[in-house]
Amino acid sequence: MVKVQPFRLGVHCAAMKTPSSPRKEPLSFSYVITLRLAIPDKPGMFARIAEAIARTQASLGAVDLVSSEAGLKIRDVTVQTAGEDHEHKVLAAVKRISGVRVLSVSDRVFLMHLGGKISIANKRPVTTREALSMVYTPGVARVSMAIAEDRSKSHELTIRRNSVAVVSDGSAVLGLGNIGPEGAMPVMEGKAMLFKEFGDVDAFPICLATQDPEEIIKAVQWIAPTFGGINLEDIAAPGCFLVEEKLKETLEIPVMHDDQHGTAVVVLAALLNAARVVKKDLARLKVVLNGAGAAGIACLRILRKAGVREIIACDKLGAIYAGRKENMNPWKEWVAKHTNTSGFRGSVEKAVAGADVFLGLSGPGTFTARAIRRMARDPIVFALANPTPEVPPVEAHRYARIVATGRSDFPNQINNVLAFPGIFRGALDARAREINEAMKMAAARAIAAAIPPGHLNEEYIVPSVFDRRVVKAVASAVARAAVRTGVIRRKRSRDPAGL
Amino acid sequence: MVKVQPFRLGVHCAAMKTPSSPRKEPLSFSYVITLRLAIPDKPGMFARIAEAIARTQASLGAVDLVSSEAGLKIRDVTVQTAGEDHEHKVLAAVKRISGVRVLSVSDRVFLMHLGGKISIANKRPVTTREALSMVYTPGVARVSMAIAEDRSKSHELTIRRNSVAVVSDGSAVLGLGNIGPEGAMPVMEGKAMLFKEFGDVDAFPICLATQDPEEIIKAVQWIAPTFGGINLEDIAAPGCFLVEEKLKETLEIPVMHDDQHGTAVVVLAALLNAARVVKKDLARLKVVLNGAGAAGIACLRILRKAGVREIIACDKLGAIYAGRKENMNPWKEWVAKHTNTSGFRGSVEKAVAGADVFLGLSGPGTFTARAIRRMARDPIVFALANPTPEVPPVEAHRYARIVATGRSDFPNQINNVLAFPGIFRGALDARAREINEAMKMAAARAIAAAIPPGHLNEEYIVPSVFDRRVVKAVASAVARAAVRTGVIRRKRSRDPAGL
Repeated sequence: MVKVQPFRLGVHCAAMKTPSSPRKEPLSFSYVITLRLAIPDKPGMFARIAEAIARTQASLGAVDLVSSEAGLKIRDVTVQTAGEDHEHKVLAAVKRISGVRVLSVSDRVFLMHLGGKISIANKRPVTTREALSMVYTPGVARVSMAIAEDRSKSHELTIRRNSVAVVSDGSAVLGLGNIGPEGAMPVMEGKAMLFKEFGDVDAFPICLATQDPEEIIKAVQWIAPTFGGINLEDIAAPGCFLVEEKLKETLEIPVMHDDQHGTAVVVLAALLNAARVVKKDLARLKVVLNGAGAAGIACLRILRKAGVREIIACDKLGAIYAGRKENMNPWKEWVAKHTNTSGFRGSVEKAVAGADVFLGLSGPGTFTARAIRRMARDPIVFALANPTPEVPPVEAHRYARIVATGRSDFPNQINNVLAFPGIFRGALDARAREINEAMKMAAARAIAAAIPPGHLNEEYIVPSVFDRRVVKAVASAVARAAVRTGVIRRKRSRDPAGL
Repeated sequence: MVKVQPFRLGVHCAAMKTPSSPRKEPLSFSYVITLRLAIPDKPGMFARIAEAIARTQASLGAVDLVSSEAGLKIRDVTVQTAGEDHEHKVLAAVKRISGVRVLSVSDRVFLMHLGGKISIANKRPVTTREALSMVYTPGVARVSMAIAEDRSKSHELTIRRNSVAVVSDGSAVLGLGNIGPEGAMPVMEGKAMLFKEFGDVDAFPICLATQDPEEIIKAVQWIAPTFGGINLEDIAAPGCFLVEEKLKETLEIPVMHDDQHGTAVVVLAALLNAARVVKKDLARLKVVLNGAGAAGIACLRILRKAGVREIIACDKLGAIYAGRKENMNPWKEWVAKHTNTSGFRGSVEKAVAGADVFLGLSGPGTFTARAIRRMARDPIVFALANPTPEVPPVEAHRYARIVATGRSDFPNQINNVLAFPGIFRGALDARAREINEAMKMAAARAIAAAIPPGHLNEEYIVPSVFDRRVVKAVASAVARAAVRTGVIRRKRSRDPAGL
């Protein structure tokens, strides 16, 4: 997926704090350490510590008193830094102060992960025999038998009503690459948190000790009776296409590979609004896509569905065209057949001549600001590589009218969290058997519509991830689309708890 | 597992309420319905309803006023019944009252299951960019990389620290048989609730759409990076043996088939105390086991470990002996080789001649009270078939000195919930790689020791499932045994959140 690049104190902010010599790397919420210090109880001691920290250009945060006794104060001092090297500099600076002892150093991000980030909650206590006899034997036997007689009741009488598996094989985690299932766990747990926080969906991470697409398919098919939906995540292309296709085909619950479709939905939403701002018609846009991976191809498909007719997709060899032989695969063959109707051959920099939109889903440095000058009037540039965009946003702004990135420290952040909680919420609410094109399209339109036309402008084409109205709007649009396209399981039985 | 037969109002209780004509079937917490009634606002109307319910010998519970308007009262009337037929009788009786309309009828057990019984809880809110950047990208990337470099850190920095999968294929659910994975879900969710309530373990149900042992093994191996432990549940024999053996061998996390070992641990605990009450030495006991399924064989193993030397195991063909040809399998061959040293052949009723203990893990009516008379002095009878024991407990009491069952409406309930929460709690706390024999033995001794010697008597050889001290005692005994036997993963790194 297009990963969230969360808020970093940008260079301009850091500059305000330390006007004399701004650090190159901005301070980050990801690198906050807490030093437990034993400080002699003498006047001026804390000032020396604060000064030492300031000299490293780190930012002093909370200062808590742990204990105070016999001429010694124990304090927890929290410091925001720009990275691990910076953390070590801060530590060294404090250690140099004579009389001050560093008792321990802890890292806030790691502390937050200790023991995991999610837990199981019982919806009711089991503190009496009466409760025990209803949630477990013998009462539970009647519910089990009712489901055994009609399996579809499992979608009402078990967690399937609201549960989604966040499944990864750890083969393409964030920008970190193939770090394996254990390494993927904190990311999938984080995703489960976002599902809960934004969509009230009970998601559970499932990280698989296999990276073989056929085995991933089997694993998910086998665990499917437990879940109401499947969110595939961070599975490398092209395996991810096979896995999603086969699971969609064989399972009767919604399946979505978020890296593909979550991204595509938010990109389309942003493009709908960008086109409105520059007053261009989608059907007349020329779009150049750079990056023909999972997300890129999904974007291409949804843009076509939305009416975009002229698209040229590029990979590192340049434009993909019918008849190209090098570096192709079945998905690129599809791309070649359905895009680039003029048969353009050449680099992405040449492809953008006269284009209205550049859509980057590739890597840092794969595009230049100068090339934007060759685009049509009012260029729209989505540079979504993360954390380092295809072209530096500040430079892109010089030539483009609208710039969007995956980062939270620039305007117009393309963030999947705008899409997936609402999409699954809507699918579960509607008792949908699948997530189809109409549902994704409805989600994109709902996200776009979350910004009232009067508020749209070059720096505000995507709503905030913390705007809670977005999830609600997306969920109800998705649910309506599911009903309209006839993919709902069946009407909810009028009274599933009745006799 | 030996399933909990929860508290039912016994015949004697029901008799106290309706002395004139006691119902054959006792009233049950599992059959409670709520009738929503529209009642004309006239004097005496509710009395007629109460009378009609009383005539069916159901018990009137809570009466809530929903609304009151224009000469009409809407009330929710809760009624405890003895079963589904009884529920229908109550409904018919109320419907016959002229003027009263039944607006809806709901069943409390089903209501409790609507939407599932467990949910996911975030350990902290994700309502700010700062929080988002720590639990998800980019902060999470550092944690993921730390785990990718040293996978064992996943046991500290993810839910693995406290997570257990409750895995079933739905092939042998409660006494209901092969009802499939969807039907098994409410039971596994209930088990997850017990894990949370009693052991503060975050357990998640995983019901598999395969009943092939090799596929179950693969499925669990693939999902294992997500979990800190695996509780196998309600998987039919002999498949369950294969599955457990292979998983214990290949996974580096604790694996336990609760139907086997949870039962065995509680049976041993009860037997330790029963032997104390009758002042007999375990090493001199003669035990006859009826039922050579998963639980039976596990009991046999743990009893041997505990020092019981003379055991005869029987199945429906009678005693299992070396050289028997009919109805054998590799596990029964093991039984034949290691028990019944005298080579006894014959029925279970004959086998118990002179025996000190009858241990039933079979089915209803497979033993008779009369046979108890042939046993040695102070017979100990564990009749654990559920809900209907091998021999009616009231009859068994006539001849046996100590009787235990799986039911909560008789003294001495053998209930796995005394064991599994504490066993996994202890294994997770100790960072154990497995659950070994010493740990199970320690659990049994801790359960037995939960009743102070001075309080032991014929009707109190097992502590209450609601005695919270039991889990704590079991967990710490199990953790100590893990350390003693050297199966702990490694010492907890001194400061996993530190630099």
